[in-house]
Amino acid sequence: MDFLELAKARYSCRSFADKKVEKEKLEKILEAGRIAPTAVNYQPQRILVLQDKEKLARLSECTRFGWGAPVIMIICYDKNISWKRKYDGKDEGIIDASIVTTQMMLEIQDLGLGTTWIGSFDPQKIREVYEIPENLEIVSILPVGYPSEDAHPGEMHEKRNSIEQMVYWDTIK
Amino acid sequence: MDFLELAKARYSCRSFADKKVEKEKLEKILEAGRIAPTAVNYQPQRILVLQDKEKLARLSECTRFGWGAPVIMIICYDKNISWKRKYDGKDEGIIDASIVTTQMMLEIQDLGLGTTWIGSFDPQKIREVYEIPENLEIVSILPVGYPSEDAHPGEMHEKRNSIEQMVYWDTIK
Repeated sequence: MDFLELAKARYSCRSFADKKVEKEKLEKILEAGRIAPTAVNYQPQRILVLQDKEKLARLSECTRFGWGAPVIMIICYDKNISWKRKYDGKDEGIIDASIVTTQMMLEIQDLGLGTTWIGSFDPQKIREVYEIPENLEIVSILPVGYPSEDAHPGEMHEKRNSIEQMVYWDTIK
Repeated sequence: MDFLELAKARYSCRSFADKKVEKEKLEKILEAGRIAPTAVNYQPQRILVLQDKEKLARLSECTRFGWGAPVIMIICYDKNISWKRKYDGKDEGIIDASIVTTQMMLEIQDLGLGTTWIGSFDPQKIREVYEIPENLEIVSILPVGYPSEDAHPGEMHEKRNSIEQMVYWDTIK
């Protein structure tokens, strides 16, 4: 399977089977995040992996999503480590954590597992519930599990803009 | 090749051959960005593709990088379109554009081309030089081309933190 086929096969999985995810697969997912490029290779990404049932249950205090997945990964970056751009002081950590999350999302798909990128959450509540220190900025959440038998792409999945709506050739008009 | 092999094979290419990139390949790269997931599927990504020699030459006014690549892609998001989180008003557009850029970067690798994610640039200068309107936020730049014969991974390429330095299991300590 080439990369474009993998990217096209990926969809936002919102229903998970009651099946444990093997440690070996979790390690491969984390490996995809470990080797991701980050600004100036500063590697500010920090990932909290939740498997404890009580901790998983408390996710509902922080977001409407999660769909009962057996594993939750919370992707952060350490703002004391991330690179800041000299021109305007911009903290590139959010970009680094997004690259990391994207590579993990794609590896999840490649392993036959499912996920959905969760951006809709209460960051302050997550910080409180999971005792995340102030230096870590919370960027994204990935639930991880085997898709249930009835998991399927949502209605929005195929609704994408055309290339013409997205691309400008040499000049923006 | 599985995804992890592709991600491991990718490196920051900083030397390009004097060879044109086929239109068909550019379209595949853009397709990888088109189908990327974005928050609530709002698809705020907008991409400026530069191939005109005069326009390419002016990149040096905006960044120290680019390495004379025959194609430059500037990835933006439209802040009038991107999704804002209800909890804290956070604009997720920068994350969307980062997912898009990551998928494009990986497709570039899969096509046998090279790139390096450029985050070090003067955003105001880019806006002026390429006449990018205020509603578009500039997130990243990808030079695209065939790697030159002597292109190779940089010294930092293999220097990554261990999984243990990056991951917390159930609790941050």
